[in-house]
Amino acid sequence: MAQRVLTPQAEDFPRWYQDVVAKAEMAENGPVRGTMVIRPYGYAIWERMQREVDDRIKAAGAQNVAFPMFIPESYLQREAEHVEGFSPELAVVTHAGGKELEEPVVVRPTSETVFGEFMAKWIQGYRDLPLLLNQWANVVRWELRPRVFLRTTEFLWQEGHTAHASEADATAYALRILHDVYRDFMVEVLGIPVLVGRKTARERFAGAINTLTCEAIVGDGKALQMGTSHELGQNFSRAFDILYLDADGQQQHAWTTSWGVSTRMVGGLIMSHGDDDGLRIPPRLAPTQVVVVVVRDDAGCLERGGALVDELRHAGVRVVLDDKVSVSFGRRATDWELKGVPVRVEVGPRDLADGVVTLVRRDLASDNPSRKQTVGLDQVAAAVATALEDGQASLRRQAEEHLAARLVDVEDLDSAVEAAATGAARIPWALVGDAGEDRLAAEGVTVRCIQRPDGTVPASADEPDLVAVAARAY
Amino acid sequence: MAQRVLTPQAEDFPRWYQDVVAKAEMAENGPVRGTMVIRPYGYAIWERMQREVDDRIKAAGAQNVAFPMFIPESYLQREAEHVEGFSPELAVVTHAGGKELEEPVVVRPTSETVFGEFMAKWIQGYRDLPLLLNQWANVVRWELRPRVFLRTTEFLWQEGHTAHASEADATAYALRILHDVYRDFMVEVLGIPVLVGRKTARERFAGAINTLTCEAIVGDGKALQMGTSHELGQNFSRAFDILYLDADGQQQHAWTTSWGVSTRMVGGLIMSHGDDDGLRIPPRLAPTQVVVVVVRDDAGCLERGGALVDELRHAGVRVVLDDKVSVSFGRRATDWELKGVPVRVEVGPRDLADGVVTLVRRDLASDNPSRKQTVGLDQVAAAVATALEDGQASLRRQAEEHLAARLVDVEDLDSAVEAAATGAARIPWALVGDAGEDRLAAEGVTVRCIQRPDGTVPASADEPDLVAVAARAY
Repeated sequence: MAQRVLTPQAEDFPRWYQDVVAKAEMAENGPVRGTMVIRPYGYAIWERMQREVDDRIKAAGAQNVAFPMFIPESYLQREAEHVEGFSPELAVVTHAGGKELEEPVVVRPTSETVFGEFMAKWIQGYRDLPLLLNQWANVVRWELRPRVFLRTTEFLWQEGHTAHASEADATAYALRILHDVYRDFMVEVLGIPVLVGRKTARERFAGAINTLTCEAIVGDGKALQMGTSHELGQNFSRAFDILYLDADGQQQHAWTTSWGVSTRMVGGLIMSHGDDDGLRIPPRLAPTQVVVVVVRDDAGCLERGGALVDELRHAGVRVVLDDKVSVSFGRRATDWELKGVPVRVEVGPRDLADGVVTLVRRDLASDNPSRKQTVGLDQVAAAVATALEDGQASLRRQAEEHLAARLVDVEDLDSAVEAAATGAARIPWALVGDAGEDRLAAEGVTVRCIQRPDGTVPASADEPDLVAVAARAY
Repeated sequence: MAQRVLTPQAEDFPRWYQDVVAKAEMAENGPVRGTMVIRPYGYAIWERMQREVDDRIKAAGAQNVAFPMFIPESYLQREAEHVEGFSPELAVVTHAGGKELEEPVVVRPTSETVFGEFMAKWIQGYRDLPLLLNQWANVVRWELRPRVFLRTTEFLWQEGHTAHASEADATAYALRILHDVYRDFMVEVLGIPVLVGRKTARERFAGAINTLTCEAIVGDGKALQMGTSHELGQNFSRAFDILYLDADGQQQHAWTTSWGVSTRMVGGLIMSHGDDDGLRIPPRLAPTQVVVVVVRDDAGCLERGGALVDELRHAGVRVVLDDKVSVSFGRRATDWELKGVPVRVEVGPRDLADGVVTLVRRDLASDNPSRKQTVGLDQVAAAVATALEDGQASLRRQAEEHLAARLVDVEDLDSAVEAAATGAARIPWALVGDAGEDRLAAEGVTVRCIQRPDGTVPASADEPDLVAVAARAY
């Protein structure tokens, strides 16, 4: 029996989250309020997320760029809803180079305004459209109640910004990003069965005419917004004069979109798959898919462990060797469980005498007898490949079962509030509306998204028979 | 004869540089003084640099992390030389979240101080050493005379920070980064024959006991510092209490290093290889190695062009198709020359009738007859592979010849100043010294580095027979 290193989830989920972030060496609080230091293991996970999302963004035709983090205060003021939405969260540079600045500059909370300014320069005619840009960047929104990864004053993200010749094209692209980039990555790589849908008017991004979202229902039944894709209509193209000449030689305002995912996804990953023993990282994402643990430094364990690492690495597996035999085997096993490495291969003298090693799957619970198996030395690569594939499917299945258990269909607002105590409620949107949102908000519950009954994204909030997903949220 | 699109280098090199940055769509000035917007083509080049440098950093054992960009002002003040060196360049956030901050925070100009604070927490015993960390980040140093890529208020870089148990280990690691990461990348991938050496005391990083550098001698004969690796001694470990218990149970201060390369390398690339027709990107770096240009949309040109792109991509070549036949062929050829794509494959109806295409190498001058060759359709992949290999070697050879022509051995300070009008001077370090540096500085010339006579890095500035490389610098 492993010693207790984490607060159990059932006892105090937020405390469990803090514990696992610290003990798995994912991140720490930074010196300035609300900031975080992402440690090597946490950053390796973020790098893998970046690579997978970036590949999909490029496949969707967007190109990466880098805009400055300093934005003139006047830019933000040009779009009324935008400045109102972000003003309370801005960090402002008033002094630089030893002098007071004539015009203060803000540290970007998001970059619609500065992209807008340059898109207006780069776009002349309809042949320049669509213009599909993205950047990986840090942004700042001053947080009063920060929580590592979930809500930090500075966070890392990508923000896509695109301009289109028609509303239909902009709508289609915002949807494409939601489905082919975000949902595909979250479901297929993270193994998180996110719900997709539209935000209500009050939950929209400041300046958008439509916000699409991916929402996870995490371990404690709360919702976490994992990514959003916004149609900005012509709001920013009017504010920044993003004009193009159409095929008839007429000046038109472009239609723009923006979309982003952030280091918040790391928090979503932790809270979606973690258990009382620590993290559980899906194999497709994991920076370390397999750890080969040498139990003792005798009986050929070290040599055999090294050879297995070479063999697995050659087979394309992301594998590390743990040969720190000066630390007890039990302590090391506990640490690898904490870090959620999908597969552990234990190389010990007794097993080796029998020509076998022990393979342990992290996706299965510690009381599940099939999580450990004995594997012949010439079968390790094949067994690892199977375990990684099964582990990916099993984490996703467990998350789907969790979602099915926590997502409850209800027919009135009282029942929605009750369901939101432990999960999420699906309630007819017609029963909610603006007044219903007020009612829910009074209980700390929000409409996370509006969906069609089959879970797909509606073209407008006015389609018949829509359902609202209501939950408490991070 | 192509029309003139750039100011010729011989006429006005800085103007040529500005022209090519703009016309090749690499970058533009941002809205806040000294900042830049890196456009897709410039950013793709930076992404390739990042990948190559990051691979080498990881091979040197360092792990990536992310520290916050906001640093409490008090941190900087703890190391005397450091705060003195950076104070004039700081950007300061005084207001955030709608309030004045109790303690202003600075936007990191570099992160020694905040790494120091956390290394002190993470390091307990000698087994925790060496601690090898790196981050890819943006930093801010307020610039009075900004120049895109070379000197900008905000720039992108990597900064490595390491802690070691002994001075010898720190020294060896700083050298390893200089040689195996920076010089190897710059010579083998960028094709730039950088000079390596030590900085003089006055040119050192603020807070370092030794600064190692890679210096390029670019097109106009000026020097450009391309990357630096610093030994920080125990200065930061004393300021931040980075202590460890040695094997005898004694508390010791660690020895730290820091090292970085930045988007300035993009400027170095442009100025090292560019010519009067535009950029010339070395094939190993180029985000686009080959462009297949369809001359007209008849006679099967489009189909053949598409098939060639598929074939080359399958062979692992980074290739794009240019089928914009609505734009004149000449204009498109000029644009690809400007962007410096290493190889152009032109697919035209007359050539196709003969079963051939035309292959053009960008590394050779426009009046060099061998830059164009006619290649049979079944020989394109092989010819492209050869052209990419030859192009890489040829750009490096041209840069080596340029360096040999511009680097002059001299025996007195007057001759050094004279040589620095068109290039760099190698002068016995014993003839320079502190007074000589004053004398050179009065003429706008600095000692870029001190080397052994064979061009290797000396262990100290007191070795006999050292030479100083003196030049004007960006």
